[in-house]
Amino acid sequence: MSARPRKRRKKGDVASKLRELGEGAVRQIRAGSNPAVQIPARTLANVKYDRKRSIIELGDQTQTRALFNVGQARKYMQTFLVASACKDLLDAAKTTSIRDLYYITKHTIGGTKQNTFEEQEESDPIIEDLEVTIDSLREEMNLFASNRGAMVGDLTLVDAGDTIDLRRLGSGGWSVPSIVEENVIQFKRCNAKMILLVEKDAVWRRLNEDKFWKKHKAILIHGNGMAPRGVRRLCHRMVKELKLPLYVLVDNDPWGFYIYSVVKQGSINLAYESVRMAVPEARFVGLSSFDPKRFDLSSNVFIRLDETDQKRAKQMLAYPWFERKAWQREMHKMLKEGVKLEIEALSSKGISFISEEYLPRKIRERQYLV
Amino acid sequence: MSARPRKRRKKGDVASKLRELGEGAVRQIRAGSNPAVQIPARTLANVKYDRKRSIIELGDQTQTRALFNVGQARKYMQTFLVASACKDLLDAAKTTSIRDLYYITKHTIGGTKQNTFEEQEESDPIIEDLEVTIDSLREEMNLFASNRGAMVGDLTLVDAGDTIDLRRLGSGGWSVPSIVEENVIQFKRCNAKMILLVEKDAVWRRLNEDKFWKKHKAILIHGNGMAPRGVRRLCHRMVKELKLPLYVLVDNDPWGFYIYSVVKQGSINLAYESVRMAVPEARFVGLSSFDPKRFDLSSNVFIRLDETDQKRAKQMLAYPWFERKAWQREMHKMLKEGVKLEIEALSSKGISFISEEYLPRKIRERQYLV
Repeated sequence: MSARPRKRRKKGDVASKLRELGEGAVRQIRAGSNPAVQIPARTLANVKYDRKRSIIELGDQTQTRALFNVGQARKYMQTFLVASACKDLLDAAKTTSIRDLYYITKHTIGGTKQNTFEEQEESDPIIEDLEVTIDSLREEMNLFASNRGAMVGDLTLVDAGDTIDLRRLGSGGWSVPSIVEENVIQFKRCNAKMILLVEKDAVWRRLNEDKFWKKHKAILIHGNGMAPRGVRRLCHRMVKELKLPLYVLVDNDPWGFYIYSVVKQGSINLAYESVRMAVPEARFVGLSSFDPKRFDLSSNVFIRLDETDQKRAKQMLAYPWFERKAWQREMHKMLKEGVKLEIEALSSKGISFISEEYLPRKIRERQYLV
Repeated sequence: MSARPRKRRKKGDVASKLRELGEGAVRQIRAGSNPAVQIPARTLANVKYDRKRSIIELGDQTQTRALFNVGQARKYMQTFLVASACKDLLDAAKTTSIRDLYYITKHTIGGTKQNTFEEQEESDPIIEDLEVTIDSLREEMNLFASNRGAMVGDLTLVDAGDTIDLRRLGSGGWSVPSIVEENVIQFKRCNAKMILLVEKDAVWRRLNEDKFWKKHKAILIHGNGMAPRGVRRLCHRMVKELKLPLYVLVDNDPWGFYIYSVVKQGSINLAYESVRMAVPEARFVGLSSFDPKRFDLSSNVFIRLDETDQKRAKQMLAYPWFERKAWQREMHKMLKEGVKLEIEALSSKGISFISEEYLPRKIRERQYLV
């Protein structure tokens, strides 16, 4: 944790940064030196939790990747192959999946039996290297992850030139794409006062059917489990640009806490993306281990914590982003009771209990954790 | 396979059928007999493949579930508990997930320590029993499965009262809900000439970005892997009501074939739903084991079939719905070559090869299997 956080964001658009990467290599070759790139280290030792800003960040350590080095030549070649393919994507204004990118860049090197890549497991880390090297998200290089999650609410937005009124999208909603950068998605008329991110699509559907977003002037979004990159980036943008609070509704179990913490701080694996993905202000609205008492839930909805749950909960107690008193109290309570709860457990109090009682009270009485 | 297929569909709306179920029990009790329901058997022996209609169907065998029977009493109680909860849902015009339903119907029976249900694994089969007993889909009882998949295309529809123009939904599209029955979704203006169902969201995104649906007057839908119930039911309805052909684009592997076959014939497990889910006319547009030659694909995109793949492919050879000559030829070719192919492999020929070359040619030259 000794690494200093990187302060500045590299200037220029992504295409320029990719061109600069290539031109740098050409300059090194012309100068007769061993062409090499400096790649920020994506190691635990180079990850830092910034307490003040409440995000996980990458430090300043870098590693060298050189062409004339037996252990690095293959990766050097791959780095430029991926960079070149991304530059082509940007020039063509097309987007593609990381699986596609693997196929696009895979070929047998002329005169040899060597393939540029054998498996996608080889090309994925190169994408991550490139992201940190030119300080851009993969989405900014026109690479997308999975399309998952849906959204409705008191907001109009523009998606790829089409104006979409999220108040009039029926029971299905707008399918959240993976790439939600400014050039694709722009926010227009917004009357919402908050964003509610729910873990489960079934809960989202219940809240949409009850028109929770209408009654409470909200934007309602789900990520179908762990929030995918598109959903996280969109929440980040809405919080910043629309100045709205973000409430997160997940199961009362270590996995739910983890989903919340990734939305809030980012993940350790992909620390470099936190600056543009994390929402440190995100508010956890449960479920909480104190809810059974608060909301008079029957004990027959309890699920016993298994060994993995207990182990995970104990690990989380030590995370710096859960060191606040309220969080410690929450986790100790879970461990003490030895049980977890699903959001659906609220349905035992009535099908619309969640939209008519639980959430309004949690938000009104500010019963959330940060 | 000796069972006769059931010919008629039970008359009346779903709420009436549920009420009739309850009234039947009351009549039996008043008559002093042992209250019992006849439940169509969901067993392999009671499943039949109707070659003429090309769907998997449930036969006429039933089993008795009686109240005064030590082995059946608990399930009898559960059947009526679930039926009653569904009736409440319909009366309240609300929908819920099967997970929710489990919590809604779970309680401790007064004066005992017995819970009505211990796990969702107990309530799910009861839902299936109820579906076959009153001959209705769970969606018609206002129960939903997962929300998955997205759609764009040359079609306007109404979803829960909102008119949605699928030509103007940007890069994200409309998120396909799980319940797509006539009372929720109605089709309006349609200029599409075909429906294209793709297995993968990444491929869907590519085709949407290339505006394939616009150029080829199509409806473009994906199910994010195995098509979920909502996507299948919607395809079934569009084929019937809009009189459009359905093309299915999946990977060239046994799993891709299986996805196609479930869309086409229904699954053995849930044979009773085929009548309202299956699309026997569905056309398989690949990928095919003959495509590498047809489209000049490099062998470095091949993936070797593993043992599980080979076993699955051999099983499928024996399925009656794959007995047509063209399918046998297709599967034998896969086994002979010993390799499979992903849709993304087409990207090795260029990022828009799939939308500009592959699909137009496949459809134009009628290179599909049924």
